[in-house]
Amino acid sequence: MSDTRETFRTETDSIGPIEVPADAYWGAQTQRSIENFPFGTREAMPIEIVHALAMVKQAAARVNRDHGLAVELADAIEAAAAEVIDCKLDDQFPLVIWQTGSGTQSNMNVNEVIAGRANEMLTGTRGGKDPVHPNDHVNKGQSSNDSFPTALHVAAVRMVESALLPAMAKLRKALAAKAGAWGDIVKIGRTHLQDATPLTLGQEFSAYAQQLADGERRVGDALEGVRRLAQGGTAVGTGLNAPKGFGMAMARELSTLAGTAFTPAPNSFEALASNDALVELSGTLNTLAVSLNKIANDIRYLASGPRSGLGEISLPANEPGSSIMPGKVNPTQCEMLTMVAAQVIGNHQAVTVGGMQGAFELNVFKPMIGAAVIRSLHLLSTGMDSFATRCVEGIEPNRERIADLVGRSLMLVTALAPEIGYDNAAKIAKHAHESGQTLREAALELGLVDGETFDRVVRPQDMI
Amino acid sequence: MSDTRETFRTETDSIGPIEVPADAYWGAQTQRSIENFPFGTREAMPIEIVHALAMVKQAAARVNRDHGLAVELADAIEAAAAEVIDCKLDDQFPLVIWQTGSGTQSNMNVNEVIAGRANEMLTGTRGGKDPVHPNDHVNKGQSSNDSFPTALHVAAVRMVESALLPAMAKLRKALAAKAGAWGDIVKIGRTHLQDATPLTLGQEFSAYAQQLADGERRVGDALEGVRRLAQGGTAVGTGLNAPKGFGMAMARELSTLAGTAFTPAPNSFEALASNDALVELSGTLNTLAVSLNKIANDIRYLASGPRSGLGEISLPANEPGSSIMPGKVNPTQCEMLTMVAAQVIGNHQAVTVGGMQGAFELNVFKPMIGAAVIRSLHLLSTGMDSFATRCVEGIEPNRERIADLVGRSLMLVTALAPEIGYDNAAKIAKHAHESGQTLREAALELGLVDGETFDRVVRPQDMI
Amino acid sequence: MSDTRETFRTETDSIGPIEVPADAYWGAQTQRSIENFPFGTREAMPIEIVHALAMVKQAAARVNRDHGLAVELADAIEAAAAEVIDCKLDDQFPLVIWQTGSGTQSNMNVNEVIAGRANEMLTGTRGGKDPVHPNDHVNKGQSSNDSFPTALHVAAVRMVESALLPAMAKLRKALAAKAGAWGDIVKIGRTHLQDATPLTLGQEFSAYAQQLADGERRVGDALEGVRRLAQGGTAVGTGLNAPKGFGMAMARELSTLAGTAFTPAPNSFEALASNDALVELSGTLNTLAVSLNKIANDIRYLASGPRSGLGEISLPANEPGSSIMPGKVNPTQCEMLTMVAAQVIGNHQAVTVGGMQGAFELNVFKPMIGAAVIRSLHLLSTGMDSFATRCVEGIEPNRERIADLVGRSLMLVTALAPEIGYDNAAKIAKHAHESGQTLREAALELGLVDGETFDRVVRPQDMI
Amino acid sequence: MSDTRETFRTETDSIGPIEVPADAYWGAQTQRSIENFPFGTREAMPIEIVHALAMVKQAAARVNRDHGLAVELADAIEAAAAEVIDCKLDDQFPLVIWQTGSGTQSNMNVNEVIAGRANEMLTGTRGGKDPVHPNDHVNKGQSSNDSFPTALHVAAVRMVESALLPAMAKLRKALAAKAGAWGDIVKIGRTHLQDATPLTLGQEFSAYAQQLADGERRVGDALEGVRRLAQGGTAVGTGLNAPKGFGMAMARELSTLAGTAFTPAPNSFEALASNDALVELSGTLNTLAVSLNKIANDIRYLASGPRSGLGEISLPANEPGSSIMPGKVNPTQCEMLTMVAAQVIGNHQAVTVGGMQGAFELNVFKPMIGAAVIRSLHLLSTGMDSFATRCVEGIEPNRERIADLVGRSLMLVTALAPEIGYDNAAKIAKHAHESGQTLREAALELGLVDGETFDRVVRPQDMI
Repeated sequence: MSDTRETFRTETDSIGPIEVPADAYWGAQTQRSIENFPFGTREAMPIEIVHALAMVKQAAARVNRDHGLAVELADAIEAAAAEVIDCKLDDQFPLVIWQTGSGTQSNMNVNEVIAGRANEMLTGTRGGKDPVHPNDHVNKGQSSNDSFPTALHVAAVRMVESALLPAMAKLRKALAAKAGAWGDIVKIGRTHLQDATPLTLGQEFSAYAQQLADGERRVGDALEGVRRLAQGGTAVGTGLNAPKGFGMAMARELSTLAGTAFTPAPNSFEALASNDALVELSGTLNTLAVSLNKIANDIRYLASGPRSGLGEISLPANEPGSSIMPGKVNPTQCEMLTMVAAQVIGNHQAVTVGGMQGAFELNVFKPMIGAAVIRSLHLLSTGMDSFATRCVEGIEPNRERIADLVGRSLMLVTALAPEIGYDNAAKIAKHAHESGQTLREAALELGLVDGETFDRVVRPQDMI
Repeated sequence: MSDTRETFRTETDSIGPIEVPADAYWGAQTQRSIENFPFGTREAMPIEIVHALAMVKQAAARVNRDHGLAVELADAIEAAAAEVIDCKLDDQFPLVIWQTGSGTQSNMNVNEVIAGRANEMLTGTRGGKDPVHPNDHVNKGQSSNDSFPTALHVAAVRMVESALLPAMAKLRKALAAKAGAWGDIVKIGRTHLQDATPLTLGQEFSAYAQQLADGERRVGDALEGVRRLAQGGTAVGTGLNAPKGFGMAMARELSTLAGTAFTPAPNSFEALASNDALVELSGTLNTLAVSLNKIANDIRYLASGPRSGLGEISLPANEPGSSIMPGKVNPTQCEMLTMVAAQVIGNHQAVTVGGMQGAFELNVFKPMIGAAVIRSLHLLSTGMDSFATRCVEGIEPNRERIADLVGRSLMLVTALAPEIGYDNAAKIAKHAHESGQTLREAALELGLVDGETFDRVVRPQDMI
Repeated sequence: MSDTRETFRTETDSIGPIEVPADAYWGAQTQRSIENFPFGTREAMPIEIVHALAMVKQAAARVNRDHGLAVELADAIEAAAAEVIDCKLDDQFPLVIWQTGSGTQSNMNVNEVIAGRANEMLTGTRGGKDPVHPNDHVNKGQSSNDSFPTALHVAAVRMVESALLPAMAKLRKALAAKAGAWGDIVKIGRTHLQDATPLTLGQEFSAYAQQLADGERRVGDALEGVRRLAQGGTAVGTGLNAPKGFGMAMARELSTLAGTAFTPAPNSFEALASNDALVELSGTLNTLAVSLNKIANDIRYLASGPRSGLGEISLPANEPGSSIMPGKVNPTQCEMLTMVAAQVIGNHQAVTVGGMQGAFELNVFKPMIGAAVIRSLHLLSTGMDSFATRCVEGIEPNRERIADLVGRSLMLVTALAPEIGYDNAAKIAKHAHESGQTLREAALELGLVDGETFDRVVRPQDMI
Repeated sequence: MSDTRETFRTETDSIGPIEVPADAYWGAQTQRSIENFPFGTREAMPIEIVHALAMVKQAAARVNRDHGLAVELADAIEAAAAEVIDCKLDDQFPLVIWQTGSGTQSNMNVNEVIAGRANEMLTGTRGGKDPVHPNDHVNKGQSSNDSFPTALHVAAVRMVESALLPAMAKLRKALAAKAGAWGDIVKIGRTHLQDATPLTLGQEFSAYAQQLADGERRVGDALEGVRRLAQGGTAVGTGLNAPKGFGMAMARELSTLAGTAFTPAPNSFEALASNDALVELSGTLNTLAVSLNKIANDIRYLASGPRSGLGEISLPANEPGSSIMPGKVNPTQCEMLTMVAAQVIGNHQAVTVGGMQGAFELNVFKPMIGAAVIRSLHLLSTGMDSFATRCVEGIEPNRERIADLVGRSLMLVTALAPEIGYDNAAKIAKHAHESGQTLREAALELGLVDGETFDRVVRPQDMI
């Protein structure tokens, strides 16, 4: 990255002095972390978390202004934090997920960049600790131990509200629209993958829509816990060095800044020592992944063919499917979504393993947990949105094929059971299966029902 | 098992005749399943699921009596079902978890035993299909596809209400009682396992109590989904062969029988094709396991010693700890609870993997999912109850040791930071660490604060 | 269990005296564990682990006889241990999985029962510690910390060799037999669930056989680590209180007793502090579960129908499939096996979570890990054996259906690509799909190939 | 990204024409995938997979030159592929992980870029299909279905050999060096976190080194399966459109190009339809994560303090530890490594879930599986290397503290058990614990041993 002309300045922390690129806003602790955790840019701390941390700093500047922080400094901190939130300094956050387990280094990265930018605003000189000090002023009243989990919660709530829930609603509506449109298409039901009694294609899709609706409720329930913020607990939950009422004031400011409701955690000690609220949220994403896997799997099996599969529906042909088989079209959106589901399930396991290992006053798996939840939210949101647009909305039913398949089914015999008993009905189905006859032929041949009764009772369109 | 004197009778199903032990109430399908799935008794279908299926049958007899089932038959079915619910026929359910994925064979086992017992009541002859037929009468208006998941939901709700939530409340109260009793014991905080600023032992335990309280809310939220029953959907969700209103009537009767509220699922197709509600419930058990692992781990580390560990608390000595080290006492209740947590996390993965693989109109991982959830509920309930009784309630704080450890801490320097700045405070801590001095000695030696200020500010009891 | 006439005797341990049922062989520590961990019989420590512990005791009696243990006592211990191994005292092991994490209580249960039985042999009085003492004699040279993991390894190796590998070989052979028998049945290939180029049904099944063969290699690799025994490390790995060479002598005796090779662990500290060898073995079971899920899933989809699915093969009809749909037959062995796979995957997660949490000189998740591995071995062994016998061996191909489906496929066009280029071949496939023509019709209509070339190149039987 | 001046050219595929940026080497299928899967750059297909695909293309050009591919075209393909392998075209691979499950689009991306660059070399015009066609020439003899899994295997083997195994060896050596250096430091052992009999600090670290050594063996075993390549199977495993011997020739060329051994898969059908070899490899990474979690956890607990923890060792102070607590230093490398372990465990779950869902002739979770394995390899390699360098190598023992702790232990009494019996030894330990006496004092007071015997037997340095 750097070339021979690159220049440096010296920054210091309690470990000592260290060289920092002259044009960087960050300071000693960020630089040290770059060198101590060399995972490279593709493991960068998600920018959503950085932005949320900047929101915390902006909110803190406002609250601290009421508690003795010099107005000039508070204003500069606010202005610098606003630039971070506005994505203007995204290249100033080089740290990776795999760092200290409290997120201290990312918190300090944000503290340092905001101080470094605020100092530039106030003095014309970039970086440093004067007049704005990253710890004493930007981090005032805070600890990484409460600020970082607060930022994780703020980032998660924002992504759920701005991306996940809209994508879920979009997919639910797309599925419900199909359910509504296909209420008259009677098709064979399949249980154990075997022919069963009929239902409509609309009913089949209504189940998918219901899964999404339930998922929205689940995520909503879990979100209540995520709205509770650790902020105010400072180092171990006691709130040492934070003014009285700091947590409440911060929740209020963050609600304003983010445009959604936050409250202080009912127990600060729990809010630092555990990440249970994020484990819970991840659990609802896991359930959502389970639902999506079912839906996407069904759809690709229903669309299997075009000539030698089930072939009841057709999916949009978005791209060529094969590098060797010309003309092949594949259910690629389904494949994308089921792969997303698998990764989300895996991430939930990572979050679980991290969440269970808190110790004493702090859980030190926070960056991993936060990054995994953010990634799951991103994958699910983009995946569902794309799946709705590029797959579900374009599905077409193959009415002829559907009618053909339901007509053949031996399980229409079920409707006869209340008339002639389960055992006799079973004899008919078995006889038809072995002889290759239709149900009607087999029923009449066995003499277990007359033709008129059969025709009155065995009507697929009446079985739904 | 059988000896040479054992006698048999012949029962039949659509596959043909089969020999059944003469004294068994069950019929052909149960017998066939015993032979087809030879996993042995330790893999038995959980009896809670069998009892819940019997509740379904009793409820169905009541509802079917209003829809044309002969009163005599309905009464006999009810009476036989009541015996099953009362644990009087527990030895009649030899089937295992690993069978057909719809639970059809356990449903038929219950149908056959109830029919077999009802026939005995009515005719004096055990077993058979006359006058009470397992399918036409006991299973009337039902399919395994709706009865079995209904039974899983009924069993799960009953266990949550009768065992899990009471155990959670008991453990929460035991922890909260300690939090209340120990509000004056100032101790060192630990973050990253390193000495941090102080808090009280009561505050530390208050976090555990909060985790339980949150867990109760999570389980309660998930329970709402489990109260929704598949019953009424019959084979594929359409309700074929069930009278109109059957699902609603069944939910009402089951609510009465179980003494807790159930409602029909809003979408029968979803209720058969997915087990998302149980995946969701399992997710809350997973989060609970995460919480319990944290709590039990903390407690055993705090109790580590007795002479060369942290030693801040003492646990009850329930048993000798070692077969080779005389006099050793171990945190065995903590170990039991963390092992339970690990298995519950594993079961959640099994449930997730099963839940994601539904296909078309049915998820065929129901027995595995149901058994895993029931086992997790059993392990957690018993584990928390025992942990509360045999560990938490008997914990004693070691006040001298606690006072000794908090007094040594260098992190009390944090209270000085607002007075002299973060960087100067860091110098004092570093100097004390390197020189082996107390904080006060180091602070005065560096001349960064005077003694009076130090004594005013650095007071552990004021930092909580 | 007990009735009013039950009598008791008093046994003591370092905690004090306790009442034990008079007819029990066990002593104070077992009794205490029954009361302290009330999980009930369905959570019993797997009997395979108890038997393996008894093998450890028998081996130790032999080795200790050479190191000063009185012959009379050694003989009695051997005789009593042999009875345990022979399943004669199975009702004397009431303890559950969820106990102390070292398995000390199950180790003491075995020590006490063997001492209690040996004392009865020597004195006529059941139980007690004289002349045979459970710790000083039966446990001589051992600690639970090395005996219990040794027993887990012995039990696991025995189950792998006696049950798992035979079941894998049986299933592999059943699949390979089908692969061999069906080498001439040309069928459509399916990739992305979509019609693809052809292969033979035999080739399809040869892949399954290969998965099993690979699985056998994987399990075999992992078994090498499990053959290494902790025995000899005693309490923390140093071998304190064990005579020199004890571990080596024990490995030799256990090899003789079990009829399979064991060696002392290369590092005793690792062998107590970690359970990595069992985590590794569990990982191979996880991979096996992955393979089995694929195989069973394919087979049930290929057998889907009978009239409205793929229907390329027919499975044995082992039992009636539905309580409501007469005559339905389901792929129940596939369902059993995929449920087993899900639970094994879950157990692997539990084992992973337990395995990662060792601390200092001991991992205290041993009973959970051992029980989960044993259960996975049991489920997989029984499941594969049954699946081979009751499903694979009875599969019949539906040759007409298979020929019909492969004939329709548009992907036979692939064979033309080397002749006319990918892009032209794609045009033919697309045109045929849109027009509903056969490939040949479409090809000739587009003029991209002549009939003779088409007939020479597009021959499914030449594409395999 | 693009500005108004950006110009485009038109490329086509079987779906139709599409605009592609004029300066891009890629073609229609890549462009379509960019638009159909809008996950953004942070979800990019790992570049290691792209490079491995380019190796496949270079190898194929060599083999195809022997099978009729025009030398001019073959040379140009080789040259272009070499540029990709040399990282010269890294910005030409914009596709993401979440695409079609066969990796077809990334395979086509590589085909198109190589064709586009080869065409530029041959004609001066970038892109297009003439004279070098992405399918007919670059992809000749191949399908995505065999090329993509081949690339995953090649990429995985290269990363294991170049990064993972070296990092494991480095960490093992660092641990072994400590084990060697600390063979004389007698310290207290801890089992169940409770004081136990002594061992040396060197012995404790030797267990960690052993875990790594075992891990290297595990990874090595699994690697054998990954060296087997799907290449040669083409679309479904039959090798249609590939010349005879293609798979063998490709394995030979890839071995040469990559400098490590590859062989053709013994069963091509299995190699496409399953990803079991990668699931197996992931399983060994899971076991490695379990080991690392144990090691890093132990080290941070041993280093806990500095004044109120165990404090037996000191870790290097790499950076300031707290934004609020001045002078705090934390075990950040341990935290990084345990977070890495948690994510690797999660990724293993994702890989398992993907691996189990293959269907018929293809597993369509390949990009997710490949990307997750690559990420786990990257995280583990970098994490272990950093942990060795920045933590283990710099650990210092605190000899005074260690001596102090071992001297206090009551479990030294264990050495007396063979002299005076377990029960008497237990009495001494209990008496010492309750009275606060030393073991010696308690022993003499109880009169269970004389002073001389005590001093001869109870010597920590003789207990190791």
